[in-house]
Amino acid sequence: MTEFIPPGTRHIALPSPFAMKRGDALHDARMAYETWGRLNAAADNAVLILTGLSPDAHAASHADNAEPGWWEAMLGPGKPIDTDRWFVVCVNSLGSCKGSTGPASIDPATDRPYRLAFPELSVEDGADAAAHVVRALGIDRLACVVGNSMGGMVALALLQRHPGIAHAHINISGAARALPFSIAIRSLQREAIRLDPNWNHGDYDEEAYPEAGMRMARKLGVITYRSALEWDGRFGRVRLDGDRRIDDDPFGLEFEVESYLEGHARRFVRRFDPNCYLYLSRSMDWFDLGESCQGTCEMGLSRLRVDRALSIGVHTDILFPLQQQQEIADGLMAGGADARFLPLPSPQGHDAFLVDIARFGPAVREFLDSL
Amino acid sequence: MTEFIPPGTRHIALPSPFAMKRGDALHDARMAYETWGRLNAAADNAVLILTGLSPDAHAASHADNAEPGWWEAMLGPGKPIDTDRWFVVCVNSLGSCKGSTGPASIDPATDRPYRLAFPELSVEDGADAAAHVVRALGIDRLACVVGNSMGGMVALALLQRHPGIAHAHINISGAARALPFSIAIRSLQREAIRLDPNWNHGDYDEEAYPEAGMRMARKLGVITYRSALEWDGRFGRVRLDGDRRIDDDPFGLEFEVESYLEGHARRFVRRFDPNCYLYLSRSMDWFDLGESCQGTCEMGLSRLRVDRALSIGVHTDILFPLQQQQEIADGLMAGGADARFLPLPSPQGHDAFLVDIARFGPAVREFLDSL
Repeated sequence: MTEFIPPGTRHIALPSPFAMKRGDALHDARMAYETWGRLNAAADNAVLILTGLSPDAHAASHADNAEPGWWEAMLGPGKPIDTDRWFVVCVNSLGSCKGSTGPASIDPATDRPYRLAFPELSVEDGADAAAHVVRALGIDRLACVVGNSMGGMVALALLQRHPGIAHAHINISGAARALPFSIAIRSLQREAIRLDPNWNHGDYDEEAYPEAGMRMARKLGVITYRSALEWDGRFGRVRLDGDRRIDDDPFGLEFEVESYLEGHARRFVRRFDPNCYLYLSRSMDWFDLGESCQGTCEMGLSRLRVDRALSIGVHTDILFPLQQQQEIADGLMAGGADARFLPLPSPQGHDAFLVDIARFGPAVREFLDSL
Repeated sequence: MTEFIPPGTRHIALPSPFAMKRGDALHDARMAYETWGRLNAAADNAVLILTGLSPDAHAASHADNAEPGWWEAMLGPGKPIDTDRWFVVCVNSLGSCKGSTGPASIDPATDRPYRLAFPELSVEDGADAAAHVVRALGIDRLACVVGNSMGGMVALALLQRHPGIAHAHINISGAARALPFSIAIRSLQREAIRLDPNWNHGDYDEEAYPEAGMRMARKLGVITYRSALEWDGRFGRVRLDGDRRIDDDPFGLEFEVESYLEGHARRFVRRFDPNCYLYLSRSMDWFDLGESCQGTCEMGLSRLRVDRALSIGVHTDILFPLQQQQEIADGLMAGGADARFLPLPSPQGHDAFLVDIARFGPAVREFLDSL
């Protein structure tokens, strides 16, 4: 039961109690965030970044933490999200284990980790918590909210529940609702964790830890975050050298692609809390901007108040397929926003925004420059 | 450790010893098969069907087993594979648990199930075993060999290793080699089984059975056998009624798509032997028609001796993607065959050939009629 908080992370307390959408409330909860650049006197140059499921708030290096962040190439002086102009805030998601309150945090009512006593978490709760951070930093209206993957869902919920909170929006590989293929994938990832006897209904520790379940969940994640096209070129049918086979098992690793998945799993399993993973994963399945407004998804989108928007996706994304980014742009346009849909030919699938900076960088820069 | 042999299945003994491609040999092994229609006097009206990973030889009902088979709509009097004209043979794959010898069969050397003592199984071994059945039935030359999915790999290996064994070939959602996305999926399915403590390095029994691992493997299989497009229309975001939720777990089934996967898993886990699954799955990863001829995949295809061929695939197949069926047709054409590539707009993904008979039926009928 460990939280993983990068050095230099700052915190803002949430109102206590902090009411949750599906019922119940958090007490003494907090949000972790990091910032880059300076808020100007008019407080109108703020950009909020909302992340995918697993990243922390450390999107890029800064004075308090020189380690490269998960979006280092995108964010900094002179970079596409130019911190010479913008005051950039990245929050760690509510429900995560990287500084914001989540199932791995201490429940003040019991002085023990919440585990499954954490209230049901929805994407909307993450949006409300992010809105509180924005206002606590003295920002009435963001210049732009940028949301990637799950963060794209949180951004739409933020616009829905906090009308006028942002002038502009960049939605990257996001979705206005979960569809059954991605629900099936996430359900299977959660089942892998839950089937691990060490999960023990959430009551594990470092010794008895659901490592096998987390390995499966992460590998299935990586398979759906990338693309067959990328892997054909990158791995083909290349075998591991004999001395890189780490397993005498007749069914052990043999192909490079298997070793790649293994490396990803090893780096992840002990660095993300399994219960937090379950809560965040389930929150995505529940998300539907239409259900939230008792209407269709298109209706939900058309009612969002935002002036300018850019919805970016890639052809090779199987988890948040391209038509979902098209849907976002169309819905925002139907509501009167100046919205653009930008499909990119990145071969890397859902995760392209993390690695294909050559394509995503100019798109993001151009949009922000135009604000 | 159970085999699952449909009533009315017949058997043919393999030569003993039966040499395996990657070394070692089987003793007293046998192949299960079923037939429909009658072999004519010239013995030139035979059609061989090679199956995907899990089916048995019971492709359709017949006098000895009235139960509908897995391709009931495709096969029978007046049906696309018309048994009034063709003598149809379907074999259960070598290495399976449905009548042909595999890891769940008794090893005559020990009088106990082979389990992991079964020799390494390759697609080519399955092809050699199928060729033996063909010849044992008095057939020198098949009118056509039809291979679906894994069976499409076996069919190509059959043509490579037994030149002239077939006049024509229908390859359905097959591939001439395994590519890294499908290797990754299968590797993860095998890992799910191997991580199940009950797998116990292959030494399980009915009481201590790797059910959790098999559930995961099957669900991941079903996810990759179908398509996101089909599921959007079929399941959308529909929830289960309260009384159909079979789990009080807060992470239990909630969406229809989860219940669908659950149903598939329940029907499968105790009806396919886990070790057989591991062996057959791994054999597909190893398959590369190019490696088998010390050349490229295209070279391997162009050297196959077949007069007529039809390679069918669907746009929504993520496991054996459409370009692999195009590759088969192109390669056979390069070798001088009269080969055609037929992409179909079926929404059902890899498994479309089992369900979209409205599209696959006429395509198969027309090709066979033209022979």
